[in-house]
Amino acid sequence: MHRRPGAPLITTHSPGVILNGVTGRMGLNQHLRRSLWAIIQQGGIRVSDDETILPRLLLVGRNPAKLEAISREFKDLPFCTDLDRALVDGEFDIYFDAQTTDRRADALRKAIAAGKHIYCEKPLATDLGTAVELYRLASSAGVKHGIVQDKLWLPGMMKLRTLRELGYFGRMLSVRGEFGYWVFEGDAIPPQRPAWNYRKEEGGGIILDMLCHWRYLLDNVIAPVRAVSCLGATHIPDRWDEKGVQYQVTADDSTYATFELDGGVLAQFNSSWCARVRRDDLLTVQVDGSKGSAVAGLRDCWIQPYAATPRPVWNPEVPNPLNFFEGWQRVPEQQSFENAFKRQWELFLLHVVKDAPFPWDLREGAKGVQLAEAGLESWRRRAWVTLQPVN
Amino acid sequence: MHRRPGAPLITTHSPGVILNGVTGRMGLNQHLRRSLWAIIQQGGIRVSDDETILPRLLLVGRNPAKLEAISREFKDLPFCTDLDRALVDGEFDIYFDAQTTDRRADALRKAIAAGKHIYCEKPLATDLGTAVELYRLASSAGVKHGIVQDKLWLPGMMKLRTLRELGYFGRMLSVRGEFGYWVFEGDAIPPQRPAWNYRKEEGGGIILDMLCHWRYLLDNVIAPVRAVSCLGATHIPDRWDEKGVQYQVTADDSTYATFELDGGVLAQFNSSWCARVRRDDLLTVQVDGSKGSAVAGLRDCWIQPYAATPRPVWNPEVPNPLNFFEGWQRVPEQQSFENAFKRQWELFLLHVVKDAPFPWDLREGAKGVQLAEAGLESWRRRAWVTLQPVN
Amino acid sequence: MHRRPGAPLITTHSPGVILNGVTGRMGLNQHLRRSLWAIIQQGGIRVSDDETILPRLLLVGRNPAKLEAISREFKDLPFCTDLDRALVDGEFDIYFDAQTTDRRADALRKAIAAGKHIYCEKPLATDLGTAVELYRLASSAGVKHGIVQDKLWLPGMMKLRTLRELGYFGRMLSVRGEFGYWVFEGDAIPPQRPAWNYRKEEGGGIILDMLCHWRYLLDNVIAPVRAVSCLGATHIPDRWDEKGVQYQVTADDSTYATFELDGGVLAQFNSSWCARVRRDDLLTVQVDGSKGSAVAGLRDCWIQPYAATPRPVWNPEVPNPLNFFEGWQRVPEQQSFENAFKRQWELFLLHVVKDAPFPWDLREGAKGVQLAEAGLESWRRRAWVTLQPVN
Amino acid sequence: MHRRPGAPLITTHSPGVILNGVTGRMGLNQHLRRSLWAIIQQGGIRVSDDETILPRLLLVGRNPAKLEAISREFKDLPFCTDLDRALVDGEFDIYFDAQTTDRRADALRKAIAAGKHIYCEKPLATDLGTAVELYRLASSAGVKHGIVQDKLWLPGMMKLRTLRELGYFGRMLSVRGEFGYWVFEGDAIPPQRPAWNYRKEEGGGIILDMLCHWRYLLDNVIAPVRAVSCLGATHIPDRWDEKGVQYQVTADDSTYATFELDGGVLAQFNSSWCARVRRDDLLTVQVDGSKGSAVAGLRDCWIQPYAATPRPVWNPEVPNPLNFFEGWQRVPEQQSFENAFKRQWELFLLHVVKDAPFPWDLREGAKGVQLAEAGLESWRRRAWVTLQPVN
Repeated sequence: MHRRPGAPLITTHSPGVILNGVTGRMGLNQHLRRSLWAIIQQGGIRVSDDETILPRLLLVGRNPAKLEAISREFKDLPFCTDLDRALVDGEFDIYFDAQTTDRRADALRKAIAAGKHIYCEKPLATDLGTAVELYRLASSAGVKHGIVQDKLWLPGMMKLRTLRELGYFGRMLSVRGEFGYWVFEGDAIPPQRPAWNYRKEEGGGIILDMLCHWRYLLDNVIAPVRAVSCLGATHIPDRWDEKGVQYQVTADDSTYATFELDGGVLAQFNSSWCARVRRDDLLTVQVDGSKGSAVAGLRDCWIQPYAATPRPVWNPEVPNPLNFFEGWQRVPEQQSFENAFKRQWELFLLHVVKDAPFPWDLREGAKGVQLAEAGLESWRRRAWVTLQPVN
Repeated sequence: MHRRPGAPLITTHSPGVILNGVTGRMGLNQHLRRSLWAIIQQGGIRVSDDETILPRLLLVGRNPAKLEAISREFKDLPFCTDLDRALVDGEFDIYFDAQTTDRRADALRKAIAAGKHIYCEKPLATDLGTAVELYRLASSAGVKHGIVQDKLWLPGMMKLRTLRELGYFGRMLSVRGEFGYWVFEGDAIPPQRPAWNYRKEEGGGIILDMLCHWRYLLDNVIAPVRAVSCLGATHIPDRWDEKGVQYQVTADDSTYATFELDGGVLAQFNSSWCARVRRDDLLTVQVDGSKGSAVAGLRDCWIQPYAATPRPVWNPEVPNPLNFFEGWQRVPEQQSFENAFKRQWELFLLHVVKDAPFPWDLREGAKGVQLAEAGLESWRRRAWVTLQPVN
Repeated sequence: MHRRPGAPLITTHSPGVILNGVTGRMGLNQHLRRSLWAIIQQGGIRVSDDETILPRLLLVGRNPAKLEAISREFKDLPFCTDLDRALVDGEFDIYFDAQTTDRRADALRKAIAAGKHIYCEKPLATDLGTAVELYRLASSAGVKHGIVQDKLWLPGMMKLRTLRELGYFGRMLSVRGEFGYWVFEGDAIPPQRPAWNYRKEEGGGIILDMLCHWRYLLDNVIAPVRAVSCLGATHIPDRWDEKGVQYQVTADDSTYATFELDGGVLAQFNSSWCARVRRDDLLTVQVDGSKGSAVAGLRDCWIQPYAATPRPVWNPEVPNPLNFFEGWQRVPEQQSFENAFKRQWELFLLHVVKDAPFPWDLREGAKGVQLAEAGLESWRRRAWVTLQPVN
Repeated sequence: MHRRPGAPLITTHSPGVILNGVTGRMGLNQHLRRSLWAIIQQGGIRVSDDETILPRLLLVGRNPAKLEAISREFKDLPFCTDLDRALVDGEFDIYFDAQTTDRRADALRKAIAAGKHIYCEKPLATDLGTAVELYRLASSAGVKHGIVQDKLWLPGMMKLRTLRELGYFGRMLSVRGEFGYWVFEGDAIPPQRPAWNYRKEEGGGIILDMLCHWRYLLDNVIAPVRAVSCLGATHIPDRWDEKGVQYQVTADDSTYATFELDGGVLAQFNSSWCARVRRDDLLTVQVDGSKGSAVAGLRDCWIQPYAATPRPVWNPEVPNPLNFFEGWQRVPEQQSFENAFKRQWELFLLHVVKDAPFPWDLREGAKGVQLAEAGLESWRRRAWVTLQPVN
């Protein structure tokens, strides 16, 4: 009755996104189901009271049967098996790549050439030269570009970062990361991860996989990485694949790395598929600072400030009267956390549509590859390797 | 009343022990109070039903007032401030040294020359050359010799060793040691450790201190050490001594070391006076093996065999449903454990008096110094250092 | 055998202390039993390895029967009922006064005139003029002087002070003190405190009693007090004394005071003998700072740093999901704490014998009286009262 | 089927309510969603078996986009941006105002002039003169009028009132209120409250906000307020608004007030956005009486009657054996409690439609403003301020 004529219209932006690699585990679950589809289901990203971003999707892959099944699950999303044809389609603005690493570079080169904005999974490439080339190509082409750095949006890591911004740590001294768990060999108990992860010739290896993560995590949450000393190992030489066929492990399944960061901070990160977990979470990062320490897991974070630091007595003759877990306090939830992949997708779409800042570009992706490569070199040379600037 | 005529007389051996350095914390508490005095109070070491070892003690030191006070506490034990005079006294057979490291070599040379059996605290010396010289001097002189390696008798470490001997681990893959706690700077809260520990010029430094321990611990409990990569740091540059006087820290207060052991086992040990403790104990050692893992603290040890290894899910969106501490089982107490220092004293006295085996001789002490020296070299050269045999 | 002739002699200082007022509760329990007698029993105060202070005592009082009983309990300590005679005795160096407040000034004047060093209970006097006069008399006479400020050595308050020195609070914003408990009226349940506390004409009144404490506590632990707004009340008009005789309460039994401190810190202290305790301790002090808060009781202290500060939701419709006590962490014990009165006695004896610093002199005692007097004036005038410097 | 012939028809009253200010947090959540919409959803207020009150709503506001979004959420409730036009509409009987305080007076004057019944949020106005004028205007106009006093329907406060009515307290002696929590500054952690609360020029300030509440709470639950001594402070000078823009705080963010009530009861209330919570709830009110005490939070209430009052011992040398929280008993739930805002809305609608009593009129609203104004005056004059009758 009182509705005024001329009430404001709501603007809806509908960027088209080509999703390549959704038949893989990460592509399907994290990028399609929990990120883009969830965004669509909630009515898009609300920019303001009268402006919304609602992406349109096109699925691309090599296996038409799998694609069709996925399409059906998501209310008949369009799909095709011909990337080249998809790229010439002017209706799509963004190319996203979640293929295996060894296929990434070629597809990105084509998509850049087609003028698409680029978003992709890490590692950007299997070597630094290619990674830098891709970064430069995208920059010269003037397209927008970004790379997945999901661990930055893990609630536990965000809490660490907030603590740093609050000045909680005083001067940061050292960092200890423990990552991994026991991945079953596959003979008696089925394996939890695909076999290609354990084959060097298919882009496997924990150094290449994880050092990319540790690079952006350290750079963003603690301080920029300057140098690395790294040791790899193949602790379990024989495994069985998803079909029960025995194979030889040719890639490293564990790595013990030490990093020097800006400001003299030292960081030690163990990553292993051959370790059993007796700690707070699958990934824990302890930061010791002059004014306090924190230990973060995936979601939770515990702190022990200077004033709560106990004074233990070394006396092995009696059972220890201190429980060293009790002297820590859980950081309360001060904001709600969304799925890390979804959060980064929202930021990337805002970057493309509204030009919002998005610092996690292909240059950052190349830095991750750089650290992995330097780690492998350090292992080979048995010495520290210093990182050069990436441009 | 019921003693049979002709019952055997009890033989009591009374080796004389010169104790040099009992005015220090370790000398007084661990070696005098909890080891030798405890042995005397319990009536000596019972070798058999009719044979006992009851040591006689002579305290040597530089501060007569302190010595007198200690003497009074221990029922007027004899004391003197003149080591040379004590060494010529034929009534004493053993020379024990718990002085600061920089005073050890001179005193040992004199004691060896005087024909005394030698037992001493670690580090044997501040450099490998001197350590090897002392080992060779003692060997040539034909005296018996030993060095303190107390952590071998920590109940937790003994349990680890028993697990290895039981074949529990299968093939040992990797080891992670975490040692240390926050040592207060001394301005607002009094410091827990003496200032000389933080002064290089007085023999301080955590690399020299702890790598000696890690050498014998790894060699004896896991596998012999072959190579080391080591990084040291002085995280806290200013401290206050026992009298509240500020001083500059000149020695390393933290070290991050990786070791290669025989059989391809990799070990990573963090030692730090600038870290806060969120783990089971002040020292924890985790061993991961192909058939099971164990985590040992000073006294307790927890195991997770292959069959109890969980299969965690990486899902940061929901609070983790697994408590990773619950999948471990405490190793039950199967024997009673005595003070580590006392236990080794008993073994050394049996070695001297009854010629029982005592593998922890000055050569082993020199190996500890070797690892510390190699650690310092690795830090300086920023590269791995391989250990040579010590003879 | 090896004891050298000429081993150093130990020097023992034996200052004589006249104790006046030991028949009262505080004098007997806190000053004699737990302080001076405990010092004597432990062999005196150890200044260094070869120097000790061992006080000699003389008990003075008005009731010879009580004095004799006390003397007998403490191995026949000497006693007398004639203060004047005791004061002329050259063997005694220190005069200590724990009489009721209205008798203190006369006795102190005599003791100062006799050249004794002065130590006494608070309040120094019942009015500021007398308190300042006593301070000036003692200063001019050149004797050493001190006043009891026991709450400074409560472990909880020492922890607060350490937190401030650590910079834990950031900028201190506000302080809330809650002190007191229900003192039974004495008809059905016997009273816990003597009747004179509730009679103005005998020096009673909670403002006079407690504002002296809050003055030195705030001045030393938080920041100097600048102004006060104070309201007193006599909530319970009738009480029964120790003998069951009813009397009218003429003094204030509760006080609600607000203080302004240097640096803009605001402090609110409730003190009441008519309140029931639902909090951590009989005295709790909460300090809120820009970087963290703390709540201290008599012994314990709990902290909530900025990073652990929760974000509560105001939603009275559902039971509160947060337990507001869980977000706090207990400050660990980092040093051992002795009886507060004993600790201050040791410091005063070191001050007299060795000239060690002792800032808690009669001027500080006068400041306590000043705040109490200003509190009473504020109550009367119904306005804030600003404090003037005491000299 | 079983309806008797001649069964009475059900009468439904449908008063029209103009809701002004629903785009604000309180207006939207408490008044629209949880009160009026909830009443509509449950089928209205049932006066009797055959009589119901079912309000009709018209949303008024200044931002059409926000209004449209709200309208859509509540099944297309009508809305308009022109208050004048809404007020001339004869279909609406009641005007409700939840705008910011500085806009309230003008709107109320218009609504009264238009003959509407008046209901509004507190504070009624920013100064007492205006508040009294509004009360007199509404009275003279003969319209019904009321003001929100939600804390009276907090379950915890209702329990306190019931205890008073039961005579539980004996004579009430004193009251202590603690209100508030830490409102984040907004730099590292997003703020919980809108920026205007911290700007005096926009009607912010905790004294104006909270003393209105404490007036009706004390008047209704304890005893009428007679005089106030109040101190305000701006503890945090810089904050960041909802968009991350830094601004200067110009209003008080904490206040420390003492009140005298009828019958000699003394009340002390701390209200602060800069305090951390170590107590039972976000608001706690302790009442000490001659026969018993109670502590109420938002929902729960705990009591300690005379007979359960403990007799604590002051002995800081040993850890306190008493847990002072255990001596209290939770008051059981004897009735179910509804949302406070909804409950008062129901009473106001019954007042308008059925002339049921409603004592919380604009005069009571003016009294709240009076106490806030007197608090500000007391702060300025540094003295107690006595309240005059409001007529």
